[in-house]
Amino acid sequence: MQWKTAISQVNQDHEVIRGYDLHELVAKKTFVEVIFLILKGQLPTPDETRMLNAMLATMIDHGVRIGSTVAARMVNSLGNSLHTSVAAGLLGLGGSRHGGALEGAAQFFQEHAELKSVELVALLTSLKEQKIRVPGYGHRIFTHDKRTDALFAIAKETGLYGKHCRFAELVGEELNKLSSKPLPLNMDGANAAILSDMGFDWQLAVGFFIIGRMPGLVAHVYEEMTSGEGLRRLAETEEEYIGKNDSQL
Amino acid sequence: MQWKTAISQVNQDHEVIRGYDLHELVAKKTFVEVIFLILKGQLPTPDETRMLNAMLATMIDHGVRIGSTVAARMVNSLGNSLHTSVAAGLLGLGGSRHGGALEGAAQFFQEHAELKSVELVALLTSLKEQKIRVPGYGHRIFTHDKRTDALFAIAKETGLYGKHCRFAELVGEELNKLSSKPLPLNMDGANAAILSDMGFDWQLAVGFFIIGRMPGLVAHVYEEMTSGEGLRRLAETEEEYIGKNDSQL
Amino acid sequence: MQWKTAISQVNQDHEVIRGYDLHELVAKKTFVEVIFLILKGQLPTPDETRMLNAMLATMIDHGVRIGSTVAARMVNSLGNSLHTSVAAGLLGLGGSRHGGALEGAAQFFQEHAELKSVELVALLTSLKEQKIRVPGYGHRIFTHDKRTDALFAIAKETGLYGKHCRFAELVGEELNKLSSKPLPLNMDGANAAILSDMGFDWQLAVGFFIIGRMPGLVAHVYEEMTSGEGLRRLAETEEEYIGKNDSQL
Amino acid sequence: MQWKTAISQVNQDHEVIRGYDLHELVAKKTFVEVIFLILKGQLPTPDETRMLNAMLATMIDHGVRIGSTVAARMVNSLGNSLHTSVAAGLLGLGGSRHGGALEGAAQFFQEHAELKSVELVALLTSLKEQKIRVPGYGHRIFTHDKRTDALFAIAKETGLYGKHCRFAELVGEELNKLSSKPLPLNMDGANAAILSDMGFDWQLAVGFFIIGRMPGLVAHVYEEMTSGEGLRRLAETEEEYIGKNDSQL
Repeated sequence: MQWKTAISQVNQDHEVIRGYDLHELVAKKTFVEVIFLILKGQLPTPDETRMLNAMLATMIDHGVRIGSTVAARMVNSLGNSLHTSVAAGLLGLGGSRHGGALEGAAQFFQEHAELKSVELVALLTSLKEQKIRVPGYGHRIFTHDKRTDALFAIAKETGLYGKHCRFAELVGEELNKLSSKPLPLNMDGANAAILSDMGFDWQLAVGFFIIGRMPGLVAHVYEEMTSGEGLRRLAETEEEYIGKNDSQL
Repeated sequence: MQWKTAISQVNQDHEVIRGYDLHELVAKKTFVEVIFLILKGQLPTPDETRMLNAMLATMIDHGVRIGSTVAARMVNSLGNSLHTSVAAGLLGLGGSRHGGALEGAAQFFQEHAELKSVELVALLTSLKEQKIRVPGYGHRIFTHDKRTDALFAIAKETGLYGKHCRFAELVGEELNKLSSKPLPLNMDGANAAILSDMGFDWQLAVGFFIIGRMPGLVAHVYEEMTSGEGLRRLAETEEEYIGKNDSQL
Repeated sequence: MQWKTAISQVNQDHEVIRGYDLHELVAKKTFVEVIFLILKGQLPTPDETRMLNAMLATMIDHGVRIGSTVAARMVNSLGNSLHTSVAAGLLGLGGSRHGGALEGAAQFFQEHAELKSVELVALLTSLKEQKIRVPGYGHRIFTHDKRTDALFAIAKETGLYGKHCRFAELVGEELNKLSSKPLPLNMDGANAAILSDMGFDWQLAVGFFIIGRMPGLVAHVYEEMTSGEGLRRLAETEEEYIGKNDSQL
Repeated sequence: MQWKTAISQVNQDHEVIRGYDLHELVAKKTFVEVIFLILKGQLPTPDETRMLNAMLATMIDHGVRIGSTVAARMVNSLGNSLHTSVAAGLLGLGGSRHGGALEGAAQFFQEHAELKSVELVALLTSLKEQKIRVPGYGHRIFTHDKRTDALFAIAKETGLYGKHCRFAELVGEELNKLSSKPLPLNMDGANAAILSDMGFDWQLAVGFFIIGRMPGLVAHVYEEMTSGEGLRRLAETEEEYIGKNDSQL
C-alpha cells in the first residue's frame, strides 16, 4: 500500500475518476469539465467551465520562435517520435521565464492578498530595492495588455472575479507608481489571479499551462514531422565561436 | 526564413491561430473547438466537437499503477518540479505498449480500409502466421469492450461513424474467427477508427492521446507533490538481485 | 550571431574542443581528460584526472529501486526507445532529494568557506532553528560514511584536498554538536567539497552527477529492454484508493 | 520480486557493481573501465579500455548548431535547471537522423556480417532500388572520412579490428561501386563496426552515444546558464508564416 491516491481507480471492469464512472462522464460532460473535476475533485459550475475554457484557450500556442516550440521541432527534426519531441517542448514550459511567471504570480497573490495597502506598498518598495520583479506584470511593447481585459471581462461575467483579481489590479497600480516604465498586468498575471479566485493552489498553476499549451506543441511537432525539411541546424551565421584555437597537446 | 509555419502567428500585438484572432476564439469558442482548429486547420462542426470531447475524456487517466504515472510520480518524489515530472510521464505515453497501440491501429485502418474481404482475411492470416498482432484489439479480461460501444454510440449519433469504423468492426470479426481467444475491438482501436473517420492522419494519433492524458498526469504529479511522502523507493521485496557477487579485482 | 560559444567549433573539415583538435585528443587523451577539458576549458593534471575518475565512478549507479532508475525502466517497459527511457531517468537526477544534494552542498561550501568559526556556528544554529537542513550530511544508517573517507583519501593523495574539504569537515563537526542524531559528511557532501576545491562552480555540480550516473541508467534500460518482462505495472497491493466512490451525475 | 537485476546491488552498507565492490573499483579502476564493466558485465582488457576511451571521446560534442544542443540551450534559456535542459538535448540524441545512424549501422553489420560477397551485392542493390540508405555511410563534403581512419587505426593497434570492421569496409567498397556520389564509411559507421567487434549488441549502441555526448551537452547548458543572454527566441527573419489570415468567426 505504498501509493495512496484519490484521483482515480482504474481496473479491468470499471474506471472511476474522482468518484464518477468515467463512461458516464464521457457521455454527459465535456473534456474541460472532466479536466476541472480531475484537478479539483469536484465538477465545475457552468461559470467555472466557461472560465476554464477561456483560460486554457488563451494558452494554446506561442508561435514557432519561442524556445519550447523550437526545442520540440528540433528534436523532431533529428528523427524522433511525436511524443519524444513534444516532451522536449514540455521541458521548456515550466521555466522561470515561461510558465514560471504564471506560477510565481499565483504564489504572490495567494501569499499576499490579505495585505493592507500600506503593507503592500512597503513590500513592493522593498522588492524594487532588491531588484526582484513581481511576476505577471510587464509587456514588451504595450502599456496595457488587452488579453488581461478579455480574461477579466469573462471573470466578471462569470462571477469569478474576486479578491485575488482585485489584488492583482491593485498591485499593478502600485507598481506603476514605483516604476519608470509601464508594468501592465499581463496574461500570466491575469490567469494567475483568476486561478487563485477559482480556488486552485499556486503549485498547480503550471499544470494549467501544460494542459493549455499541449495542443500547440502537438500541432508544431506534427507540422515539422510532415514538413519534409529533414535535419535542421541553426544557420552558420547564427554561431559565433569565441573560444581558443590552435592549442597544442 | 528557415521555419515555415501555418499554425499561428504570434506577435506583440496580435495572435492568430490558423487565421483566427485568438481573442475572438477565446470569447466565442471552447477549448476543445480550438484544439480541433489548431490540429485540423478548420473549426469543427458541433458533431465533431462532441465526438472530440468524448474521445479526449476517455483518455484522461489510467490510474496510479501504469508506468507513465509511476515515472511521473517517481521523478516528482525525487524533488523535481511539476513540469519536469509530467515530462517523465509523457515520455511513457507514446511507447508501443501504451499510446503506440492507438497509432498502430490508426495506421492499420488508414492503410487497409479499402481491402476487399478476401484480401483482408489473407492479410490477417499472414500476420497471424508471422505472430504480428493487429493493434487495437484484445482486452485482458473481457470478451467485449463496453468502452468501444460507448464511443461508437456517440460516433453514430454524430454521423462520424464511417468506413474506418466499419472496417475496424470487420477486422474484429475476422480476427475472432482466426483466434482461439477473444480479441474484441478495444478503446484504442475504437478511438483510432473514429479519428480516421474524422480525417486525421494516423501520424497525429498519439497527439490526441497526449492531449487527453495530460490532465491525469498533472493531477497525479500534484497529488504526489502535496502528499508529504518524500523520497520513494521501490520496496526491498520488489528487488531480486540475480547478478554476481564477490568478484575480486 | 545569436549564439556565442567557447566550447567547440564543429565544421565539416575540423572539430575543435576548447581549442584542441578533437582527433589529436582522441589519439592522446582519455575520455575523462576530455570531459575535464570540455567542462573546465583546460586539460587536467594527472592528479585532477585521477580525482575526477574516482568521483564519476562513485556516482555510476544507485540500484534498481531508486526513483530515477524506476522511471527509466518503466518508460522502457511501455515500449519506448533506449534514449527516451534514459531521459525519463535523467529527469529524476537533479531533483532536490537526489542530485540536488550535491548542488546544494557545493553552493553552501562555496558561499560560506570563508566564514570564521563563530560565524559558522551562528549560521548553523540559525538554520537549525529554521529547520533548514545543510545538504551533504546524514546517512540513513551509519554514523560515519566510509565513502567519504575513500574520496578524501584520494583527494589528499592528489593534493586536491583544500579549503572547501576542510570547511566541509568543520561543518560536519559543528553540525554533530548541534544535532541529537549523527550527521556524517556523506558522499554528496564529499564530492561537493572536492569539486569546489578543483575550482568548479556549484552550478555545474549536477552536471558531474549526470555524467557519472548515465552509464548506470543506460545499463538498466538495456537490461529492461532485453528482459522479456513486457509491460510492467505496480502490483495491485501497492495501490490504496482513498478517493470518493459512487458519485452521481 | 518484480524487478530482477544483475547490474548492481545497492544497500546501506555495500554497493556492488556486477559483483565488484564499488569502493574497490573506485580506488583501482578508471571511470571508463567501470563503464565497460557495468555495460558488459566484465572488466575490460587494457586494449578494450583504450578503444572505448577513443570511441567515447569522438562523440563528445557536435557544436552549438545541431538540434540536440539547440534544444538543450533553448530549454535552459526559458529558465530551467541544468538537468531538465540536458534532458531536452538527450531526447534528440537517439533520433533516426542523429544517434540512430550508429544504431542502424550496428544492426546492419551484426545481421549481415556473414553474408557472402555476392549476397551482399544483391542486398545492397535491392536496398538501393528501394531507396533505403545503409546507415553509417556518407559525408556532407568529403569523399573520405579521416575520423574513420583514426578510429580504425586504434582498432588495429588494439587488436579489436575484426570481422565487423572488415565487413563495414567491404560494404563501403560495394556501395561506392553502386552509387554515383561517394559514400565513405563515416564515424557512426566506424564506431558501429568496432562496437560490434567488441561484442556489444546493436540495441545498446545509442547508449554509448548518450554516454559520450553527455559532457558536451552539460558544457553547453552550463555555458547558456551563465551567458547572461536571458530568454532566447529565433530571430523574426527565421520565421515565415504561410497560413491563413483574417478568418471570421
